[in-house]
Amino acid sequence: MTRDPYGGGATHGRPGHDRSAVRRAASIKDVAAAAGVSPTTVSHVLSGNRPVNEQTAARVRSVVNRLGYVPASLARSLQAGATSVIGLLIPDISNTFFAELAKGAEDAAHDLGYGLILCNTEFDADREDRYLGMIRSRFIDGMVYASGSPPSRRRLEALMGKFPIALADEEVEGLTGALIATADHEAGGRLVGEHLRELGHRRALMLTGPRDLKSGAARAHGFVRAFGGDVVERVGDFKEPSGYRLLAALLDEGGFDRTAVFAANDLMAFGALAALREAGLSVPRDISVVGFDDIRAASLVSPALTTVHQPAYDVGRTATAQLLQYVSRGEVPPASRHTLPVELKVRASTAPPTAR
Amino acid sequence: MTRDPYGGGATHGRPGHDRSAVRRAASIKDVAAAAGVSPTTVSHVLSGNRPVNEQTAARVRSVVNRLGYVPASLARSLQAGATSVIGLLIPDISNTFFAELAKGAEDAAHDLGYGLILCNTEFDADREDRYLGMIRSRFIDGMVYASGSPPSRRRLEALMGKFPIALADEEVEGLTGALIATADHEAGGRLVGEHLRELGHRRALMLTGPRDLKSGAARAHGFVRAFGGDVVERVGDFKEPSGYRLLAALLDEGGFDRTAVFAANDLMAFGALAALREAGLSVPRDISVVGFDDIRAASLVSPALTTVHQPAYDVGRTATAQLLQYVSRGEVPPASRHTLPVELKVRASTAPPTAR
Repeated sequence: MTRDPYGGGATHGRPGHDRSAVRRAASIKDVAAAAGVSPTTVSHVLSGNRPVNEQTAARVRSVVNRLGYVPASLARSLQAGATSVIGLLIPDISNTFFAELAKGAEDAAHDLGYGLILCNTEFDADREDRYLGMIRSRFIDGMVYASGSPPSRRRLEALMGKFPIALADEEVEGLTGALIATADHEAGGRLVGEHLRELGHRRALMLTGPRDLKSGAARAHGFVRAFGGDVVERVGDFKEPSGYRLLAALLDEGGFDRTAVFAANDLMAFGALAALREAGLSVPRDISVVGFDDIRAASLVSPALTTVHQPAYDVGRTATAQLLQYVSRGEVPPASRHTLPVELKVRASTAPPTAR
Repeated sequence: MTRDPYGGGATHGRPGHDRSAVRRAASIKDVAAAAGVSPTTVSHVLSGNRPVNEQTAARVRSVVNRLGYVPASLARSLQAGATSVIGLLIPDISNTFFAELAKGAEDAAHDLGYGLILCNTEFDADREDRYLGMIRSRFIDGMVYASGSPPSRRRLEALMGKFPIALADEEVEGLTGALIATADHEAGGRLVGEHLRELGHRRALMLTGPRDLKSGAARAHGFVRAFGGDVVERVGDFKEPSGYRLLAALLDEGGFDRTAVFAANDLMAFGALAALREAGLSVPRDISVVGFDDIRAASLVSPALTTVHQPAYDVGRTATAQLLQYVSRGEVPPASRHTLPVELKVRASTAPPTAR
């Protein structure tokens, strides 16, 4: 069987904390102060030599991870150098786009004798901060960052320059000097706009991801320019329920006059399909639906989804291989951009508009 | 929207190496011998102080990970104790069953102030060995093992007793004294057998996972007993293409007289649906299809798949919470079993058999 494996997916973000980066290395006193305990208690939690109340211990561990505290004895060992492990941060393990991206990253790492550990941030700024601190404080050689959560820019900047990082799939606004591998999001939006225009659509609804993500902005920009017609936008969060809720709300309002929906990722398109089905509308007869990513489920769903295929595996593989090229020489990677091509997959969810 | 999130999936294994466990701590000489280089070269690779040919360095790193070698300076630091990070090994990140399981594990870890790192073994015994060595040699407090690859039993046994481990979803044959959280696989098989029997089916095809996995054996056992009719079995690998290929081969042979297919996970059921569609057969009119796991795509596929819902999130959460209860006290968890209930989801892919 030569059919597509599960693939495709998108990028994300979550409005979040604007916590200042910790530029000075955290001390045991910093940890104690932040956790509201004595330095001796911190020491007992980390050494395990004396029992500590579990709630207190959990609070201390949380602060240790958040501040990226490294005990002095460990810091000396870390300076011994290479660890042959890199980390990959992803925002949503249940979006198979990131599974494919992770496979590509892992294959590239293994080819060079490195292991890859994955951290799933679940769109949660606190978890992301914790994982960044954890990766920094442990002996990990570098990081591929596919989390796309704008609020962490300062923390990332604190890491840049002393810790090798590559961005996969998503740029981080304002973060300069980074190595990045990403699909051509703008071309993808353009392909969708051209497809719907050529079918004869003139009034479209676009379900976008969070506005502060560059990938989403690029998709929207490409789409709006190529489509040329009337576009209404609604902002979602790249999860299936948001696609459902946004469309259901518009249908409930009445007077819905769109003939096509472009969802900025497949998961939101699935939600939109569910809302249309519930409202008794037929796809593509009453309304056309297009997704983005081409995850495996896009060709399983009924009707099979017209969508933009992103090379998720290659994005992960390229970012990681590029990163490791420098890591293996003990260098911090310079800024470079690798833009990978996308492709429109026309399936059963799009057709010319019919008069309703 | 209160619909099911992506969920469900299964467990796996791969015939593999019967490599002996490394019970004695590996020395730098062991690494040098296995990599075919001098101890000085190993030292240079790990310290990064001197340039080493990249291929050689990759070989050394690979051996370091495989043997779980820990430099003496680091070993001293590791003895300092608790690290507030645990690892989770999964076999197939693109099966959303494991994404749900990982979310449960991560939530349990975060509740107690721990971070969770994920390692995806991709059904590869070498990668699994490498990750086990990596986790053992780094300062990680414990491990949730959902990889279900029987060949690693010896390595696991080597870890048991000195390293806290919980098994999630899948038992490991012969591994005693383990903490395990798993769904009731046998009850799931039984529910499918009863459902098909009650619909009037008497001749079924069962697509199983690898025979050496206990979960698969339990599903098959429960199914065959409850179904009571004639069952033909074919062995797959829990991946979608194997479901497609097994069914396509049987249909090509001619004389296919089954009225129902029970695939031991949803991914193989999707492959079976594709093969039936290509052969011009209609589901459920010509043949009924049942899966196992209830991943999100099971309700998206057409026709929507009748399947057994496994509480993937709860399996991950229970295994991790139980493990951490002991880890947080510096104890190795004792043997205990947590069996979680399953539920049959009857959808559109099953119906009474019709005379063909």
